Amino acid sequence: RSTLALNQEKAKESEKQTKTDSDHSVSAEAGRDEKGIVSYWGVPPSKVVKEDGTEWKWTCFRPWETYKSDLSIDLTKHHVPTNFMDKLAYWSVKILRWPTDLFFQRRYGCRAMMLETVAAVPGMVGGMLLHCKSLRRFEQSGGWIKALLEEAENERMHLMTFMEVSKPRWYERALVFTVQGIFFNAYFLGYLISPKFAHRVVGYLEEEAIHSYTEFLKELDKGNIDNVPAPAIAIDYWQLPKDSTLRDVVMVVRADEAHHRDVNHFASDVHYQGRELKDSPAPIGYH
Amino acid sequence: RSTLALNQEKAKESEKQTKTDSDHSVSAEAGRDEKGIVSYWGVPPSKVVKEDGTEWKWTCFRPWETYKSDLSIDLTKHHVPTNFMDKLAYWSVKILRWPTDLFFQRRYGCRAMMLETVAAVPGMVGGMLLHCKSLRRFEQSGGWIKALLEEAENERMHLMTFMEVSKPRWYERALVFTVQGIFFNAYFLGYLISPKFAHRVVGYLEEEAIHSYTEFLKELDKGNIDNVPAPAIAIDYWQLPKDSTLRDVVMVVRADEAHHRDVNHFASDVHYQGRELKDSPAPIGYH
Ligand SMILES: [Fe+2]
Ligand SMILES: [Fe+2]
Ligand SMILES: [Fe+2]
Ligand SMILES: [Fe+2]
Repeated sequence: RSTLALNQEKAKESEKQTKTDSDHSVSAEAGRDEKGIVSYWGVPPSKVVKEDGTEWKWTCFRPWETYKSDLSIDLTKHHVPTNFMDKLAYWSVKILRWPTDLFFQRRYGCRAMMLETVAAVPGMVGGMLLHCKSLRRFEQSGGWIKALLEEAENERMHLMTFMEVSKPRWYERALVFTVQGIFFNAYFLGYLISPKFAHRVVGYLEEEAIHSYTEFLKELDKGNIDNVPAPAIAIDYWQLPKDSTLRDVVMVVRADEAHHRDVNHFASDVHYQGRELKDSPAPIGYH
Repeated sequence: RSTLALNQEKAKESEKQTKTDSDHSVSAEAGRDEKGIVSYWGVPPSKVVKEDGTEWKWTCFRPWETYKSDLSIDLTKHHVPTNFMDKLAYWSVKILRWPTDLFFQRRYGCRAMMLETVAAVPGMVGGMLLHCKSLRRFEQSGGWIKALLEEAENERMHLMTFMEVSKPRWYERALVFTVQGIFFNAYFLGYLISPKFAHRVVGYLEEEAIHSYTEFLKELDKGNIDNVPAPAIAIDYWQLPKDSTLRDVVMVVRADEAHHRDVNHFASDVHYQGRELKDSPAPIGYH
């Protein structure tokens, strides 16, 4: 008997459970058709409860992935490029900023949303390549696979947040599609050839991200951008007070970028010192 | 001033901290040269302590990633292929088993080690593709990215465990290198074309894995394979008693494979029912 046939048969007996699941799902994804898949495989959606006992609304992240951002992080740190490769990384990023500034001008909400789709690529590519290397060489990773994948997830949460503030138009979707295609492959190749260079580039990208978010904050303070209430997803992810605003969200996102800057410059430094990442335990749980 | 220059300057003032770090690292990676990188970036290796207060030895996984395996899971579940695509998935896997059996014969330790290098690929590829899709489409993932990446990490831990029991020879390393190159690309393409088919193939691969581990257990019970003490990494990862043996390890690994089977057949079923993964919350924390 196939799984699907079994599903039919089981449909009745687990009617009650399905009801619970669908109740849950409706609250989760606001009114979408959620009949709940009855599964032979015994993997029903798990029911997660928040610390205060209320139901967890999100399926794309869980309570144990939330955290309080470290706002005390130094935002001004900078890696001064000295050798050729550093300078190449630095100027590549500086040159990329030029068309970006031109395209977005002062629309910082839109800019944040669009750039986060790119920002989530390097962590995933690096994590994947280190994973494959770990398997191929029968070697441990020193936690770097996890650290880079966590960075990618964190950036994806930035995107999920800014999506709530700014909606992409069709030509912006088309642009993201194209840019991802190019950047994914470029970073993939770049990381294969020189992880040292790749991590340095990301370090500098994060320095620019800090700069953009600082500009975003200035526009918010000037009143040029509405300081709307923080999206619900952001309040849950960064454990923010219920009355937080967009300004608070930009503050914690900027702190995250400063963390990414540190991790990536550090990773590049490890390579510069002629060592391998796996021999220098990764900063885990350090988004 | 460059980071490296700063490192030199800071070397003295943080001598004490470095010492702690290097003490830590030495215990972590048994005797490798571990001078500890002095970092301008403030991301020293974190000092992690076990529940019982002793120092955490591993850098490739952390205490909060350990778990007790669910040994009560049904090992006999099987998805009977009914339509063409299911049959194609089923017979592809069956046909792949033939050269595998021929190559490894009864060397189940070696077989486990080699096959885990392959088993850790699909979760990573699937997770990565869903991540990129989530970014491109400005959509949430329903937790599936995390679920698939967790599967990949779990498989990598299987490999880290069997590496301790069986050491790869040079031609086995060469084989893994080749097989990974082929399988990674094949699965990548396959997942792009039909996630439904890709998850079904993994479901069947996991059914075969359960079978192999059952054979492994039989050989252990017959005394054809030495029931050596469990590797330390396995005891910590699966929270096993200190006097556990290889047999206990194979038992928990087999339970993990049964979980992967469920998750992947479920994912395929979701697609069969014409739905998208993101609309069916993923079984998170379910290795
Ligand atoms: Fe970001
Ligand atoms: Fe970032
Ligand atoms: Fe496995
Ligand atoms: Fe598996």
